[in-house]
Amino acid sequence: MEKAMMDDERGKQLEVRTDLALEARESFPGDGGEIAGVELREWDEKQNGVKVTEVVIKNQRGAEAMGKPVGTYLTLEAPRLSEKDEDFHKEVVEELAGQIQKLMMKRGILGRSARKVCSEDETKIATRKSRPADFRPVSALVVGLGNMDATPDSLGPRVLENLQVTRHLSLEYGVEFCERNGYPVLSGITPGVMAQTGMETAEIVKGVIKETRPDMVLVVDALAARSAKRLGVTIQLSDTGIHPGSGVGNHRNSLTEESLGIPVFALGVPTVIGAAAVVHDTVGALVEVLKREHGTGEYGEYISEMAPEEQYELIREILEPEFGPMYVTPHDIDERVKLLSYTISEAIHEALFDS
Amino acid sequence: MEKAMMDDERGKQLEVRTDLALEARESFPGDGGEIAGVELREWDEKQNGVKVTEVVIKNQRGAEAMGKPVGTYLTLEAPRLSEKDEDFHKEVVEELAGQIQKLMMKRGILGRSARKVCSEDETKIATRKSRPADFRPVSALVVGLGNMDATPDSLGPRVLENLQVTRHLSLEYGVEFCERNGYPVLSGITPGVMAQTGMETAEIVKGVIKETRPDMVLVVDALAARSAKRLGVTIQLSDTGIHPGSGVGNHRNSLTEESLGIPVFALGVPTVIGAAAVVHDTVGALVEVLKREHGTGEYGEYISEMAPEEQYELIREILEPEFGPMYVTPHDIDERVKLLSYTISEAIHEALFDS
Amino acid sequence: MEKAMMDDERGKQLEVRTDLALEARESFPGDGGEIAGVELREWDEKQNGVKVTEVVIKNQRGAEAMGKPVGTYLTLEAPRLSEKDEDFHKEVVEELAGQIQKLMMKRGILGRSARKVCSEDETKIATRKSRPADFRPVSALVVGLGNMDATPDSLGPRVLENLQVTRHLSLEYGVEFCERNGYPVLSGITPGVMAQTGMETAEIVKGVIKETRPDMVLVVDALAARSAKRLGVTIQLSDTGIHPGSGVGNHRNSLTEESLGIPVFALGVPTVIGAAAVVHDTVGALVEVLKREHGTGEYGEYISEMAPEEQYELIREILEPEFGPMYVTPHDIDERVKLLSYTISEAIHEALFDS
Amino acid sequence: MEKAMMDDERGKQLEVRTDLALEARESFPGDGGEIAGVELREWDEKQNGVKVTEVVIKNQRGAEAMGKPVGTYLTLEAPRLSEKDEDFHKEVVEELAGQIQKLMMKRGILGRSARKVCSEDETKIATRKSRPADFRPVSALVVGLGNMDATPDSLGPRVLENLQVTRHLSLEYGVEFCERNGYPVLSGITPGVMAQTGMETAEIVKGVIKETRPDMVLVVDALAARSAKRLGVTIQLSDTGIHPGSGVGNHRNSLTEESLGIPVFALGVPTVIGAAAVVHDTVGALVEVLKREHGTGEYGEYISEMAPEEQYELIREILEPEFGPMYVTPHDIDERVKLLSYTISEAIHEALFDS
Repeated sequence: MEKAMMDDERGKQLEVRTDLALEARESFPGDGGEIAGVELREWDEKQNGVKVTEVVIKNQRGAEAMGKPVGTYLTLEAPRLSEKDEDFHKEVVEELAGQIQKLMMKRGILGRSARKVCSEDETKIATRKSRPADFRPVSALVVGLGNMDATPDSLGPRVLENLQVTRHLSLEYGVEFCERNGYPVLSGITPGVMAQTGMETAEIVKGVIKETRPDMVLVVDALAARSAKRLGVTIQLSDTGIHPGSGVGNHRNSLTEESLGIPVFALGVPTVIGAAAVVHDTVGALVEVLKREHGTGEYGEYISEMAPEEQYELIREILEPEFGPMYVTPHDIDERVKLLSYTISEAIHEALFDS
Repeated sequence: MEKAMMDDERGKQLEVRTDLALEARESFPGDGGEIAGVELREWDEKQNGVKVTEVVIKNQRGAEAMGKPVGTYLTLEAPRLSEKDEDFHKEVVEELAGQIQKLMMKRGILGRSARKVCSEDETKIATRKSRPADFRPVSALVVGLGNMDATPDSLGPRVLENLQVTRHLSLEYGVEFCERNGYPVLSGITPGVMAQTGMETAEIVKGVIKETRPDMVLVVDALAARSAKRLGVTIQLSDTGIHPGSGVGNHRNSLTEESLGIPVFALGVPTVIGAAAVVHDTVGALVEVLKREHGTGEYGEYISEMAPEEQYELIREILEPEFGPMYVTPHDIDERVKLLSYTISEAIHEALFDS
Repeated sequence: MEKAMMDDERGKQLEVRTDLALEARESFPGDGGEIAGVELREWDEKQNGVKVTEVVIKNQRGAEAMGKPVGTYLTLEAPRLSEKDEDFHKEVVEELAGQIQKLMMKRGILGRSARKVCSEDETKIATRKSRPADFRPVSALVVGLGNMDATPDSLGPRVLENLQVTRHLSLEYGVEFCERNGYPVLSGITPGVMAQTGMETAEIVKGVIKETRPDMVLVVDALAARSAKRLGVTIQLSDTGIHPGSGVGNHRNSLTEESLGIPVFALGVPTVIGAAAVVHDTVGALVEVLKREHGTGEYGEYISEMAPEEQYELIREILEPEFGPMYVTPHDIDERVKLLSYTISEAIHEALFDS
Repeated sequence: MEKAMMDDERGKQLEVRTDLALEARESFPGDGGEIAGVELREWDEKQNGVKVTEVVIKNQRGAEAMGKPVGTYLTLEAPRLSEKDEDFHKEVVEELAGQIQKLMMKRGILGRSARKVCSEDETKIATRKSRPADFRPVSALVVGLGNMDATPDSLGPRVLENLQVTRHLSLEYGVEFCERNGYPVLSGITPGVMAQTGMETAEIVKGVIKETRPDMVLVVDALAARSAKRLGVTIQLSDTGIHPGSGVGNHRNSLTEESLGIPVFALGVPTVIGAAAVVHDTVGALVEVLKREHGTGEYGEYISEMAPEEQYELIREILEPEFGPMYVTPHDIDERVKLLSYTISEAIHEALFDS
C-alpha cells in the first residue's frame, strides 16, 4: 500500500487519491474526451465475466495530467471476485496469467511461458510456436509489499506465502533442472514495513536484486482506491514500477526500472479507500439529493461550483485534525484478502510455469 | 465487536451508533442537562493522566433514552495510550485494575484481591484489611470476542493470548493450591466468530459456563465509537454484559446475567468508527465552515434543521448502497491493538491475582 | 495429541506408546496369529495408492489386550501423502471421505451424503439410491484439538481454519436452507489447550454440545506413532472417541459417546514419536547389527531376552531424568501439516456436503 | 538453525553434532586437559544465577580440533530460564546485554552504550567515562534466521518481532536524531528460509548490507545442542559469524566478516537435539546400567571400546534410513521460545540503547 497511503502517512498533500490509473482517468470531466498523452482502450466484458481496460500513459504530458508515471496499466474488473466461487476464481487466474504474459512480452521478457499467449490476442503480439534454441527460463523476483499484521495491507505477504519458489532448485541442481521441468527461476521476498525493519523497502529489494540478478521484478501490493465498488474486485497490472510520493524530490523509495535496472511490474488490488474520499463522494451525493428534493440553494451551489480538487481539499482539512489519516475498508476484508492471495499466486504460477 | 457492528452486518437500523455509553450520553443536546434515569459522574483527570467517567443507567426509562441496558459504565480516557510509553501503560494498568475491582465489589464478588481497593475510593466501599476466614479465590472466565484475522477486531483474542490462566492448576492440585498462592481460579476462551464456528458466541459461552461454573464472566471486545479521537485511547468497563442487536425480539446472542446466571462484566476499547458516522461528522463541520465563510443558505439551513437522527439516516442511505457496511480505522491499528492487549491482560492479572 | 502425549506429560506409565491401533496390533508377536476379541482386515493397496486396514476391537478382552477401547479403527496408509502432488491428495480426499461415510453409516448416522457410498464397498452396506422422505441434513460438530503454536500439534486447529461451517446459515435461514442446498448443519470449534484456557478440552466440548445439540462429533487431532515411517502419511479414523490416560480412574477428559451422548468419531494423523520409542527401536537394531557382525555376547543376549515392555521401561528410565518427555518430529513437519490440513478438511466437506 | 541442522538436511556427514562450542569442548576426553589452540575460561556462577563460560579458538589448529571457526564463544547457562520468572529474565537481560557490549568492544565497535560496561569486568576492557567528541551511534543490523512456521526454529523471527528498530528515524530526521536520543541506528530483517524465498539467506543479507551499510551484524538463530539439559536455557554469543556446512568447498551461504566485510556476531539458543545424539547418549547410559547390574559382556565391551565418533556413526546409519533427519524437542518448546524471544530482544535493546 505504497502510493496513496504513504502520502497520507507523511502528511503530504493528497494529490494522488487513487492508486488505480483507471480511476485517475475517470476523474477527468467529459469522460469520452481525449487527454493528451493518454490512451484508453476498453474491451467488452468477456465471457469469463472479466472486463479489461488498458490505460497507456505515453509521455510526460500524459504523466502530468494523470499524476502517474509513463507506462501501461491494465485493469481487470471482476465483480464476482467477492464470491467464494472456485470456478470463477479459476477464470480470473487464466485471464490474469495471460495479461501478465502479455505485459512481459511487451517488455521483451520472453520465456517458455510465452508460448501460451494466444495469437488472437488483442495486442497482436505474435506468439512463439516452439521453444527457441536459446531458450532459458525467466528469472523473476516476486516482492510482497505490505504488513502481515494489518489485514487490508496483508495481500502482498499472503501472496508470497502461497508462492512456489524454484530458484533454490537451480542453485542446487543447476538452471538446467528448472529448464528441463518447465520451471521459471522464481524467488520471492516479503521485505516488511519500515516500522518493523528500519529500512526502506527499496533498499532491501535493491540489495537483493544486486545479489541475485533476476530478469524482472513483480511487486504485489494492496492499493487504495477512490470508489468502494472496486475494493477487492479489481486487479491492476502495470509495467511502471512503484513510485511512492508525488514524484517531486525524493526517489529514495522507488521500485522502478530506472532505479533497479530491470523491468518492474506491479500487481495490485485495492483494499481500502481514504476516509476523505468516502466523505467527498457522500457529500456530492448528498447535495444531489437535497437539490432534487428541496430545490437549489447557496451551499449546494457553492459546493457544486467548487473544483473537485478544492472540494476534496476542504473536506480533508476538516477531517484530518480530528481523524488523522484513516482508511475505510469492508468488514469482511480478511476473507477477501485470503481468497485473492490464492487467486493471484495461482495466476503468477500459471504465467511463469510451463505445466 | 458485537453491538454496533453486528447491527450493521445485519442491515438493521443503526439506532445504536456507538458502543460507548459516554458517547451516547454526550449525544443529548444540552450536555449539562439531566436525563431521567441516567446519572453522570466525572472525576478530574488524575495525576496518572487518566480521566474517569461513570454513567449509571438506573432504570428502564434511562435505558430507553440511552439505547443501552441498565447498569454501570465506567470510561477511562487516556490519550497517551497511543504512545509506546511503558511507564504510562503501567499507570493505566493500575487504574484499570482498581476499577475492575470496584465493579466486582459493587456486584458482591469479593475476593482476596479486594484488599487492594483503596478506602479513599470514590464509591466508598470499605476494603477488607485481612483475608476473611471464609475466603475463597474468585473463579472467573475471561471471554475474548472477535476475530484474530481482522486487525481492529483482534483485541479480544490477543488479550486471551497474554492471559495467565490458573483454573487447570486447581483441577490438578485442588483449589487450595490457588488459594495458597493468591491465585484466582482463572479460565479463558476465544470462541471465534460465527462464520468460523457456525455457532453463536453465546451458545459456546453458555455451554462452557454450565460445565465449568465460574462466579463471573469478563468479556473483552473491540468496540465501535462515534468519535475518532477516542479510538484506541478509551476503555469502557461495564457490568451490563453484551447485548448485540437492538433489543427487540432475538436475545439468542446476549451474554448477560439474565442469560448466563452470573455477573457479566464487559471491557472494551473502540477501534473502529462506522463510515456513516465519519461522514456525518464531516458534513456537520462542512456546513459550519460554509456558513462561517460564505453566509447561510438553503442547504446548510436545511441540514442544520434536520434532527441528528434524520441527518444520519439520510447519510447512511446514500452511503450504504455503494459501500455496504464499512468501517474506518487508524492506519497504525495493528500496533495499537498489540500494545493495548498487553495493558488489558496485565490489568486483569493485577485485579485478580494477589501478588 | 491427547492420548500418548498426555500420558507422558503426566509422568504416568507409558503403557500406550502409540495412538495407532494398527501399531498396537502389530506389536503382538506372531503377527499372523489371532488375538481374542480383535479382528484385523486388510485390503490390498488400491489403484489410488492407498492401503486400508481395519482393526475391530470387539469386546473388553480385546480392549485389554490392545490397550484401546472397543470399536472400529480404520487406517489409511498413503506414503505419497508426503509429496506435494495435488492429484494424489485428491485421491486421498475421495478415499477418506468414503471411509468417513462408511463409519457414519455403521453408527446409523445417515444423511444425503450416504448416497455416495458405492455398493461394491467392502463392508456391504447398501447405499440409498434416492433421498428418503424423512431426510434431514446431518448435524455435525468438528473439534480441532491441539495447539496452533506447536507445529506438530497444530493439525486440528489448521483443519478447522479450512472448514466451511454452515450451521449459522441454518440459524439465520432455517434448516431448510441447508437441506435445499445439500449442506450439512456443520459447526466447528478449536478448544485450545489447557495451559491456555485453564479448562479441560472435554469440559468445553461437552458444554458446546449441550447447547448446540449436534448428531455427532468428529474430533481431529495429531497423534503419536511408534514408527517414523508412518509420520504424516497415515490417517486413522475411529468411532471410539478420545480417551486420554490409561483408562483407570479419571474419565474427566474423555470425549466419548458415553460422556457426550452422541457418536464421537476421531480422525488423526501421527506427527511425532516419543523419544523413548526411537531409542528403543534403534537399540534393537543396534543389537542385531552387533550380533550379526561380531557374534553374540552377554548384553545383546540380555537385551534380546528382556520382554519388549521391560526393555522400553528401562530405556525410558534412563532417558527421562535428563530429557523429560520429549518428542521426535521430521524437520519438514510444518509443510506436511499444512498440506494435510487441506486434505482432511476437503475430505470432511466431501463426506458431508452433497455437491 | 543453520549449522548442525543443515548438515543433516543435506545428508552430509554429521561431523558437527552441536552448535555449542562449549559442548564441542566438553566432547574431548580428559575434560581438564589442554587442547592446542583453544582456551577455556569459566567463571563461578554469579549471584544472578547465570554461569558464563568463554571458549576462545585462537588459531587454525584449534579450529580443526573443535570443528568450529576461530573466534570467541561466550556461553550463558541459566537453568531458571525455563521458568516464567520475570525477575530472573531481567537478570539474564542485564547479563546478556553486558556480554554483547563486551564482545562489541573487543571488536572495536564502541558506542555510547559502551559506557555501561562495568570496569570490574573480567576481560579488563576499560570503559569510557563520557561520550567521546567523535561519538556516533552504532549502526547495527539484526538478522532473525529461521522459520516462523516451525516452532523450534522460530526464535530468530520472534526476536525480530519484538525488536525496536530506529534506522528509519535517522532516514527521516537525520542521524542526529538518534544521537540526541541515545538510540542506535538499528535495523532488522527476517530473511525467511530458502524453501520460501528461493534464495540463500546469505544472498539476502549481503544485498541488504551493501545497500544499508551497517557497522555490524547480529544474527539470532535457534541452535542444535548435544545435551537435552541445555535446550532453552543456554545462550551462546560469538563473534565468528555463521558457517553452515562443514567448511569444505561451498562458502556461498556463510555470514562472516570475511564474506560481509563487517563484524558478524551470532546469538543463539539450542532448541533441538538430533535424534542420533539422543540415541547415542541413551545407549551409552544403557551399557553402563547393564554393566553395573549384570557384569560385563561382549557387546557392552565392544560398544565401550568404539571411538565415540564411530559409535555415533553406527547409530546414525541405523537410524537414518527409516527416520531421515529428525529432531528432538521438548513438548513445551512453544512457550519457551516465546519467552526467550522477549528476553533476547530486551537484551539487544539494553546493549544498544542508552536509556
